Amino acid sequence: MEQKVMDPTVEKALEQFKALDEKITHFSSIIGLADWDQKVMAPKKGRSMFAKAAGTLRTEVFKLSVSQEMGDLLDTLLSNEKTEGLDEMTKAKVREYKEYYQKSKSIPADLFQEYSILTAQANDAWEEARENNDFARYLPSLEKIVEYKRKFAEIYGYEEHPYDALLDEFEPGLTVKKLDPLFAKLRESSVKLLERIKKNGKPTKVEIFDQSFEIEKQKEFNRFILPIIGFDMNAGRMDETVHPFAQTVNTGDVRLTTRYLEKNVRSALFGTIHEAGHGIYEQHVNPAFEESVLQSGASFGIHESQSRFLENMVGRSKEFWKYFYPKLQEYFPNQLENVSVEDFYRAVNTVQPSFIRVEADELTYNLHIMLRYEIEKALIGGEIEAKDLPAIWNQKMQDYLGVTPNTDTEGVLQDVHWSFGGIGYFPSYSLGNLYAAQILRTIQNEVPEFNNHIENGRFDLIQEWLKEKIHQYGKLYTPNELIVRVTGEELNADYLVEYLEKKYTEVYEL
Amino acid sequence: MEQKVMDPTVEKALEQFKALDEKITHFSSIIGLADWDQKVMAPKKGRSMFAKAAGTLRTEVFKLSVSQEMGDLLDTLLSNEKTEGLDEMTKAKVREYKEYYQKSKSIPADLFQEYSILTAQANDAWEEARENNDFARYLPSLEKIVEYKRKFAEIYGYEEHPYDALLDEFEPGLTVKKLDPLFAKLRESSVKLLERIKKNGKPTKVEIFDQSFEIEKQKEFNRFILPIIGFDMNAGRMDETVHPFAQTVNTGDVRLTTRYLEKNVRSALFGTIHEAGHGIYEQHVNPAFEESVLQSGASFGIHESQSRFLENMVGRSKEFWKYFYPKLQEYFPNQLENVSVEDFYRAVNTVQPSFIRVEADELTYNLHIMLRYEIEKALIGGEIEAKDLPAIWNQKMQDYLGVTPNTDTEGVLQDVHWSFGGIGYFPSYSLGNLYAAQILRTIQNEVPEFNNHIENGRFDLIQEWLKEKIHQYGKLYTPNELIVRVTGEELNADYLVEYLEKKYTEVYEL
Repeated sequence: MEQKVMDPTVEKALEQFKALDEKITHFSSIIGLADWDQKVMAPKKGRSMFAKAAGTLRTEVFKLSVSQEMGDLLDTLLSNEKTEGLDEMTKAKVREYKEYYQKSKSIPADLFQEYSILTAQANDAWEEARENNDFARYLPSLEKIVEYKRKFAEIYGYEEHPYDALLDEFEPGLTVKKLDPLFAKLRESSVKLLERIKKNGKPTKVEIFDQSFEIEKQKEFNRFILPIIGFDMNAGRMDETVHPFAQTVNTGDVRLTTRYLEKNVRSALFGTIHEAGHGIYEQHVNPAFEESVLQSGASFGIHESQSRFLENMVGRSKEFWKYFYPKLQEYFPNQLENVSVEDFYRAVNTVQPSFIRVEADELTYNLHIMLRYEIEKALIGGEIEAKDLPAIWNQKMQDYLGVTPNTDTEGVLQDVHWSFGGIGYFPSYSLGNLYAAQILRTIQNEVPEFNNHIENGRFDLIQEWLKEKIHQYGKLYTPNELIVRVTGEELNADYLVEYLEKKYTEVYEL
Repeated sequence: MEQKVMDPTVEKALEQFKALDEKITHFSSIIGLADWDQKVMAPKKGRSMFAKAAGTLRTEVFKLSVSQEMGDLLDTLLSNEKTEGLDEMTKAKVREYKEYYQKSKSIPADLFQEYSILTAQANDAWEEARENNDFARYLPSLEKIVEYKRKFAEIYGYEEHPYDALLDEFEPGLTVKKLDPLFAKLRESSVKLLERIKKNGKPTKVEIFDQSFEIEKQKEFNRFILPIIGFDMNAGRMDETVHPFAQTVNTGDVRLTTRYLEKNVRSALFGTIHEAGHGIYEQHVNPAFEESVLQSGASFGIHESQSRFLENMVGRSKEFWKYFYPKLQEYFPNQLENVSVEDFYRAVNTVQPSFIRVEADELTYNLHIMLRYEIEKALIGGEIEAKDLPAIWNQKMQDYLGVTPNTDTEGVLQDVHWSFGGIGYFPSYSLGNLYAAQILRTIQNEVPEFNNHIENGRFDLIQEWLKEKIHQYGKLYTPNELIVRVTGEELNADYLVEYLEKKYTEVYEL
């Protein structure tokens, strides 16, 4: 057997690159833990001081990521990739760092600093504006953020639409050209389906949820289902926060939060299942990727596909409730003893156009996202300005959902994302739904017993498939590579359209 | 007014030194939070992986502390100190970093690395040995640690006794020559006092504590007293761990832990008051010292003085229980309704020689420490060897406390300290008691209403004094400077001797 002799320069570069990747990942893991702590555990008085400490560590990660050392190592490895080739893992790591290095390196330090200060202040402005229903309070900050984002888009570079440069930050490779037809198809069918439900749908017994559900029992039930649906409690935690989230420290330490409302049992229930979807993904990443940039999910969209898949495709299925409903009735006999599983299943799938995205159902949720996508695209493209947003927002709400917010607080001011500069983030949510439906189709083909597994509580068999096909790979593949590997084709809106059509035809007896 | 013009080299050095100090302190604050998290919150499976991440950040702090940059800055500032002088804060910071820099810089990197691996392994060996009562399992590790510590003492340097070099790590400026007479006096009087109590003491009703105290109520009571005795719950937390401790993130975020045992109500009660003493100290440090090396307590000994002062001088006083006992009776009517406050007070001050240091009472505790001090001194001085420890330990236990452990697990294997290389640490505990008694004398002179304040629950007035005289200064002064500033003289064993004599004469009606 011929032993390949490695160029000593490349060998050394590989070693240094591994060490640098490990250091960055270690620091990022600590930042993750610290972020979780400040949201979940830290006492009030220490937070602003700690934010400075965390900022110092974040800056260190930024400096390492755009350092001369990083640049040189990437150069050496990229030129070797062309000649000798790199192993699959190194290739993926180089791809990840190169992407960030090239973008961030070209932002002048001054501009970055000014922008950081702006977003810190914009968050306060947004909070005040939202609290007082005062869009004018937010507008100057929002205008500046849009201005910066337009600048960044130019610096990052793009081929067709400036918004592409921002989309790419959240979903590598995503462009307006790819997304427009997907969303157009989904929007058209969703609006029509919504009309049909409104007109001909047999009402669900959604009033089931207009009852109090004891919080202590909700907690117990959530803790009961978490390990059954696949979340390893020895490799994670579950806590409470106002805004639920999942935070990874490492694959053996993934932390979920949820929110319990006595008057809204659905909030914690589906919130927990959703976050568990994110968490299980991270618990399943190949241990060989630990301590490297590959140790987390492929992209925002793919991540969201795993939370949506578990929350909606699994957690809002009839089979899911066939398995869990008797137990839920045991926990809440007063509230549920006279409610059939069929009625409960229909009730958790109630469609109800509303003003607030985070409270939206599976069908109307995507319409909320598309409204934001269209606004962002037009803003970055220079077709509209920030001052026009309230009017545009309300018009689109009426067009897509048939409702008009009474106030800007219920409308254009409801989301935090723009205030921290997260323009390009929203599409990930609907991408998640699109990916999830496509994955559902594949798993139904490859695991014919899929529905039975759910009905029998064999979530382990489903998770095994997800782990093998998706989770284990972490960031090894780009989102597009991954979806093609898993489903045999690129992202296609048909699957979600058909899924929604089928589901609601059944639920609403259309 | 004449404006002093600063040498631009010095001005620049000051700026860089401040930035470096801030960076090191920020990272240390994050390490503190992470350490707390791993002990209190982290799920099992993630811990070993996270330990690597934390190790990377710790190494970064080490590298910054012994960096060329640090060395150069210290040189510049120290030479300026001789000519132009430095402000008080900078002087103290330079003193702290210089101390660490000089010691650590002179340890060869290889030696440090070997030693780090050794202590990691020694901890496992100690745990196994303790579990199986097998000193031989621990001996090889202990021998190596002693060998390293002897080497380190030579590298660090000392004037009279090699153990001085190790003492200085925990209590800057402390030497065998200073400590020997303090401990000799304390030992002599403690052994005699113990004899008198055994012979002539009127028994206390310690059997009060042979009852179950509901854990939930213990928790409530502890949460009730914490803010009253001065701990700011908005600038801290209180959680549960097997081994109680206090951890500072910053002055607005100080975290305590305690342990609740149904069969031992004293454990959590005095443990909580003890840790609160540490915590309040850190909450009270001058905000101007935030983000600098000065932001924590003056030394291990001074820190321990604040926890012991609150636990023993305040928390085991008759006045304390005059104030709190009726409330405690409300929480535990079944257990305490027929127990008088006098009997309760005497019971919490029961003296009972025992094998285990952490369970020892206020009087015998110091004898446990002196035994360890003498062993460490002789070990580092080369007069005895690790293999001799079980026999020496048991002999000293008999001499000082009149009891001989049945097993090494109850004897020489009980403490974790040597396994992590903490030789020189133990004396801090008794130093804390010595400092505390001397501070007690001063506060009684300066605040004549001291006892009344306790009896009236006016802990705020006591904490105000401690803050003004001690806490606010953080690490600005050396422990010796501080005790002289506060009490007008250097550490003197007479105060603790007199305090113990007076207290137990009264408690035991001698």
